[in-house]
Amino acid sequence: MSIFTQRESDIRAYCRVYPVVFDKASNARQIDEQGNEYIDFFAGAGVLNFGHNNERMKAAVIDYIQQDGVLHSLDMHTTAKRRYMEVFESVILEPRAMEHRMQFMGPTGTNAVEAALKLARRVTGRRQVVAFSKGFHGMTLGALACTANSYFRGAAGVALDNVTHQPFAEITHLDKLREQYADASSGVEPPAAFIVETIQAEGGVNVASKEWLQALQALAHDHGALLIVDEIQVGCGRTGSFFSFDDVGIDPDIICLAKGIGGMGTPMAMNLVKPEHDKHWSPGEHTGTFRGQNLSFVAGVEALNYFRDSELMDQVANYTEVMNTALAPLARKYSQVAIRGKGMIIGLDVADTEHAKAIVAECFDNGLLIASCGTGGRVLKLIPPLTIPESDLRAGLAILVRATDNALEAAR
Amino acid sequence: MSIFTQRESDIRAYCRVYPVVFDKASNARQIDEQGNEYIDFFAGAGVLNFGHNNERMKAAVIDYIQQDGVLHSLDMHTTAKRRYMEVFESVILEPRAMEHRMQFMGPTGTNAVEAALKLARRVTGRRQVVAFSKGFHGMTLGALACTANSYFRGAAGVALDNVTHQPFAEITHLDKLREQYADASSGVEPPAAFIVETIQAEGGVNVASKEWLQALQALAHDHGALLIVDEIQVGCGRTGSFFSFDDVGIDPDIICLAKGIGGMGTPMAMNLVKPEHDKHWSPGEHTGTFRGQNLSFVAGVEALNYFRDSELMDQVANYTEVMNTALAPLARKYSQVAIRGKGMIIGLDVADTEHAKAIVAECFDNGLLIASCGTGGRVLKLIPPLTIPESDLRAGLAILVRATDNALEAAR
Amino acid sequence: MSIFTQRESDIRAYCRVYPVVFDKASNARQIDEQGNEYIDFFAGAGVLNFGHNNERMKAAVIDYIQQDGVLHSLDMHTTAKRRYMEVFESVILEPRAMEHRMQFMGPTGTNAVEAALKLARRVTGRRQVVAFSKGFHGMTLGALACTANSYFRGAAGVALDNVTHQPFAEITHLDKLREQYADASSGVEPPAAFIVETIQAEGGVNVASKEWLQALQALAHDHGALLIVDEIQVGCGRTGSFFSFDDVGIDPDIICLAKGIGGMGTPMAMNLVKPEHDKHWSPGEHTGTFRGQNLSFVAGVEALNYFRDSELMDQVANYTEVMNTALAPLARKYSQVAIRGKGMIIGLDVADTEHAKAIVAECFDNGLLIASCGTGGRVLKLIPPLTIPESDLRAGLAILVRATDNALEAAR
Amino acid sequence: MSIFTQRESDIRAYCRVYPVVFDKASNARQIDEQGNEYIDFFAGAGVLNFGHNNERMKAAVIDYIQQDGVLHSLDMHTTAKRRYMEVFESVILEPRAMEHRMQFMGPTGTNAVEAALKLARRVTGRRQVVAFSKGFHGMTLGALACTANSYFRGAAGVALDNVTHQPFAEITHLDKLREQYADASSGVEPPAAFIVETIQAEGGVNVASKEWLQALQALAHDHGALLIVDEIQVGCGRTGSFFSFDDVGIDPDIICLAKGIGGMGTPMAMNLVKPEHDKHWSPGEHTGTFRGQNLSFVAGVEALNYFRDSELMDQVANYTEVMNTALAPLARKYSQVAIRGKGMIIGLDVADTEHAKAIVAECFDNGLLIASCGTGGRVLKLIPPLTIPESDLRAGLAILVRATDNALEAAR
Repeated sequence: MSIFTQRESDIRAYCRVYPVVFDKASNARQIDEQGNEYIDFFAGAGVLNFGHNNERMKAAVIDYIQQDGVLHSLDMHTTAKRRYMEVFESVILEPRAMEHRMQFMGPTGTNAVEAALKLARRVTGRRQVVAFSKGFHGMTLGALACTANSYFRGAAGVALDNVTHQPFAEITHLDKLREQYADASSGVEPPAAFIVETIQAEGGVNVASKEWLQALQALAHDHGALLIVDEIQVGCGRTGSFFSFDDVGIDPDIICLAKGIGGMGTPMAMNLVKPEHDKHWSPGEHTGTFRGQNLSFVAGVEALNYFRDSELMDQVANYTEVMNTALAPLARKYSQVAIRGKGMIIGLDVADTEHAKAIVAECFDNGLLIASCGTGGRVLKLIPPLTIPESDLRAGLAILVRATDNALEAAR
Repeated sequence: MSIFTQRESDIRAYCRVYPVVFDKASNARQIDEQGNEYIDFFAGAGVLNFGHNNERMKAAVIDYIQQDGVLHSLDMHTTAKRRYMEVFESVILEPRAMEHRMQFMGPTGTNAVEAALKLARRVTGRRQVVAFSKGFHGMTLGALACTANSYFRGAAGVALDNVTHQPFAEITHLDKLREQYADASSGVEPPAAFIVETIQAEGGVNVASKEWLQALQALAHDHGALLIVDEIQVGCGRTGSFFSFDDVGIDPDIICLAKGIGGMGTPMAMNLVKPEHDKHWSPGEHTGTFRGQNLSFVAGVEALNYFRDSELMDQVANYTEVMNTALAPLARKYSQVAIRGKGMIIGLDVADTEHAKAIVAECFDNGLLIASCGTGGRVLKLIPPLTIPESDLRAGLAILVRATDNALEAAR
Repeated sequence: MSIFTQRESDIRAYCRVYPVVFDKASNARQIDEQGNEYIDFFAGAGVLNFGHNNERMKAAVIDYIQQDGVLHSLDMHTTAKRRYMEVFESVILEPRAMEHRMQFMGPTGTNAVEAALKLARRVTGRRQVVAFSKGFHGMTLGALACTANSYFRGAAGVALDNVTHQPFAEITHLDKLREQYADASSGVEPPAAFIVETIQAEGGVNVASKEWLQALQALAHDHGALLIVDEIQVGCGRTGSFFSFDDVGIDPDIICLAKGIGGMGTPMAMNLVKPEHDKHWSPGEHTGTFRGQNLSFVAGVEALNYFRDSELMDQVANYTEVMNTALAPLARKYSQVAIRGKGMIIGLDVADTEHAKAIVAECFDNGLLIASCGTGGRVLKLIPPLTIPESDLRAGLAILVRATDNALEAAR
Repeated sequence: MSIFTQRESDIRAYCRVYPVVFDKASNARQIDEQGNEYIDFFAGAGVLNFGHNNERMKAAVIDYIQQDGVLHSLDMHTTAKRRYMEVFESVILEPRAMEHRMQFMGPTGTNAVEAALKLARRVTGRRQVVAFSKGFHGMTLGALACTANSYFRGAAGVALDNVTHQPFAEITHLDKLREQYADASSGVEPPAAFIVETIQAEGGVNVASKEWLQALQALAHDHGALLIVDEIQVGCGRTGSFFSFDDVGIDPDIICLAKGIGGMGTPMAMNLVKPEHDKHWSPGEHTGTFRGQNLSFVAGVEALNYFRDSELMDQVANYTEVMNTALAPLARKYSQVAIRGKGMIIGLDVADTEHAKAIVAECFDNGLLIASCGTGGRVLKLIPPLTIPESDLRAGLAILVRATDNALEAAR
């Protein structure tokens, strides 16, 4: 492992938690070079909704490469991109009567957020953006200003201006903001946009209520601001429907997608933008070399195919119950434990950083990959592939429950 | 083509210049869905140094997928990443006695630049960065502040503070800066870093002299600033050596790499950072979901293999002469024409935006893909794959020379 | 009047409300060049607490000039400055056991605020400051960022960063801030300082409760922030005691004084700074040509003499009752009317900009100078000289009550 | 002197250089409380152009107070203000055919600069301003951003954005700027304004050439920027004419005045603004409590009366020769010494901070008040009252020359 310690940057992090070298992976399993297998409740930080090396995607991608399909195309037209857009339109947009345009950019979530912020500022002529406490939106300077965590913010080295943070999912606080926006002497002006995750993933699996999201949209629209929903971690089926907000009754102006939409782990990012906003762009104003990732288009079509019928989403509903059922006793047993989530993103909040660390470590020793999130990392985040076999899901849950019991019993 | 006009964002740009749908590609040729073939002097904006669907890379990548190699790994260890790092160390770093650490991040150039800026600010405790007129460093807010072009900057919607732009490659101007930095009453303080391209690609193929680059490094180091070299477009063999500065006698503190290092067009970005700077990072301070792109590691090893012996670089030297020889008559014939470049990045500056557009259009009609760059797009930028067959290279040059003649003769 | 319309800047404002040319003034009366007399409930925007041309001050100042006293001295020592400081120490600081240092700067309130902000940022190493909705702190860029009114802010022409505005005098909101400061993932950091007026004068005569001010001080100190109290308009006896917070139980880190402390209308500004903060200044870091205004020191001593015994403050208490008694029927009669204040700063809020304008105009026609404040100017602000004869006070109140009746009756 | 050390802020500075307590002053003499007399080559940092306690001004001011003239009036009309404006128009503006409007603000120079910056940004819709190395423009945040000295800038505690500093009085550098402004890819945009002192007083008495000032004006106007001339220290007769640029052939858009225009040391600031710019103000957008200082209007008229005929300016021309003649031998004798200036502001640059300190100290011991300026304080700045008796002028020069000789001889 010496090349890593000798030559990789000190900034490396996950490899410190999982100190092995992974070699193979399939669906919900990763295998290290010693042949040890791990059930994967981490799924590449929410990218691998359809499992490692999804067979349909493998086949499609290999076929595409073998046929010399165009791999890299910036924003030129390709047949693979056309197919992706057509399927996205017919499977996702049309059934929802969404008129949104599709904007591709550099294929990381932070690039999508940067593009959304630029457009919202352009459309409104305003510069201030409202983000929320515990929100996570990326690492580049524009997106980082929206990210709440002081550890990440502290690395900026410059002032993170033009964004203010408000409490997440507190409905009375929206009334306070409304009052301030209406008062020309409040010192607070309506923003260009509100950027929000419906479920804060990195922030500790915090779920916004339908009422709050609707009130937020109303506040935005009453004051000429855009509503940007960052679906990067919780979209693409994770919550039991393609969009996490499908059952919430909102209609965002811009939706940021990345992570899972590329299918098998190759990158892709896309914003869905209402046409009345999109028209404010001039050609090429926000570019990005890797905005035409055709392997991601090809695998992404296979991902979209999962949404043609209800089979996978039914399974997500079923698995959601399995997961909650397995974890519920922990919340009953330990008063400090809270369980939060929607669909197959579940946070097991053990209210203590050291306990969470111990649980992650014991899980790893017992063959389960799981990561923590939330302030100080006190929340175990369960985001297995949606395609995980039920046996793996149950086995993983058993490992997690046992590890949690061990950590929390010891601390009593 | 209707899905593109109906659903793709108005921001799309290259597809307006090349209004076809590409389907296949191989080495230096792209084929549209009508079966028309195009010689490629654009190479995916400098990504495809080793050609479309490079055979060695195809084989390696397909094999990797078929064996269920880990595709997506964040900053966990994988066998593919280890191999990439080992080969990079032995082929690139050790022969140059470079102690630099390798930092992976979100796989786009702009993410690399953002990471470099953060670290430079952390190391120095300063916030101001000096970039150069006509420089291009990316689209996210931190990198965009370094990009000079007002068209891109105008999309930010917020003030692009913390960066100042100085004239590029003017050695007397560095004396002026030195004077200001030394004067506590100048109102100008030494920056955290200077970020520079040795050859400005998007800026119009402007080549900095060895003397200027050395003077810039001296200025930086005399005033406690870091030298960041952005090699994203001109590194990875483009100029006839792996680094564009290999013959220049500088030793950058941070080197930003992306584009070509991923091999066949899948994304990857990497900073090379001197250990004394890298140690200022804390784990996970600058993250990115897609920082472990194993297909890029696998194809990237094949790219590195080209640097084990001198064969490809010898060919680049040869091709450079072919290209310059073919273009030289244009400069002799038309007084406004200038030819600039180093290795296989050559700018044909026709000093007029409309002429350049006409040339691009005629080339496209005759089966050559070429893009323009520089202020207003007055410079044709030749960046064919390094692996282009000589016959394609000569055929493409002939198309370009003829189109240029046609445009410039008509204008006399 | 033509020189004013021909040559004075369009920015002039009060002269549009009072379109006469004033010539003489004495205590609470101004006389225009036609000989018309006006009772003054405006007092030079709160400067003339001791009346126009206060006889004691006139005598002292004339004597000082006749004896060739030093008029202008920057921060050199003068005998007049020494006397001012000695009297201030013995009359104001020592009885309150205040250890604060006295800092003189450019003699306007905004300069005092700028100095306070600099020092708070220096002491804490933080840059963010919290100010409050409807607060007013000055026009120069640092102070203006603290001023809430969008009309003033809109003239800045640059982003007013480094300050956020919070709701004024809402105690539950302080709990919300406390929660955010304690949470490293809130995206909100504790500020360098809170800057507050105990009574917002320009903002509409809004009075903070004792409980809120104490809670604010506790919040500041628990999170390492300074408490800056801007006493510029409401200090110097206006509320019935030298400081407006004398009965509130707080101990501000920095107190900004200006306006009334110069005595008869010549400028002066002074910050009172706790010694542990003051020591962070280096000599001459915040200068100002006019920081040694000796006429203001001389007249200012006469102002301080009013605080040697309780006579004037007793009169303020008496007058406060006279004023409130006179206005109370308006609040009973008109449901929209609210009366707020403390001591001899009283706001008569008629809840309507046009009504307020009509009242100001009718008052002027009937020989009373009064100005409006608050959002859109809906609040009549009563700030007569503390030394006003009771007959003038009662006469002015009668004019105001009648004008208010006329405006509000007409609107029923 | 204990009240000063016990209670005055540590920020006090001049009193450390002149550790006495001044009591009286008349024309070019100050007298301390021990009766020691000092010839004044400092003139209150350039305020007292007409001497301490100028007899005409004393009489006018005392008379005004005795008659109960309005002392403090914000921007209401007063008879004293009308008289000031009429005299200013007839004596200063009309003879020069200047159409400029007069804007009064908070009576310190920094307030004038803040107002000028706001207006320039409003007029142009741009935010960036260009100031010059070694320039001094004030201490409040907007003006401080224009001030070059790092000692002052370091006290801001926040980023001083929106202003860049360029080399002062270097004509080739203006060509470089012109080139950058014309290039949309330079990363540098034309500013809202250039703010410049024709002679940098605090910066070390650096005199801009006529050619450079004209080229600067041409650059500004060719690129839609305003030219702001900060005349605060060098205007009002100091250079031998009312404006320092009267013989330079420029026509500034905004002229900032303060210091000397108030006559005898009471504060006043005024911007002269071309009508086409002034009309962009809305009433009351930039206010200031002390913008109606009637003692300054009254004394200021007496100051203006000096410009009705050429007597005083002829004397300035004569004194200028006396001063230069006295100092010239120093420059011949000591190679490091440089003498710079225009009219009665002369800098004696001894090229060494410690020597300058020693000279100031010896002068003080021998009865001469003189201050240093320039980087580190290496330049003795001679700015005696214009009304100094010739005997005092010669006596002061003799003290200074002797002290300089002593310091520099010792160092050989």
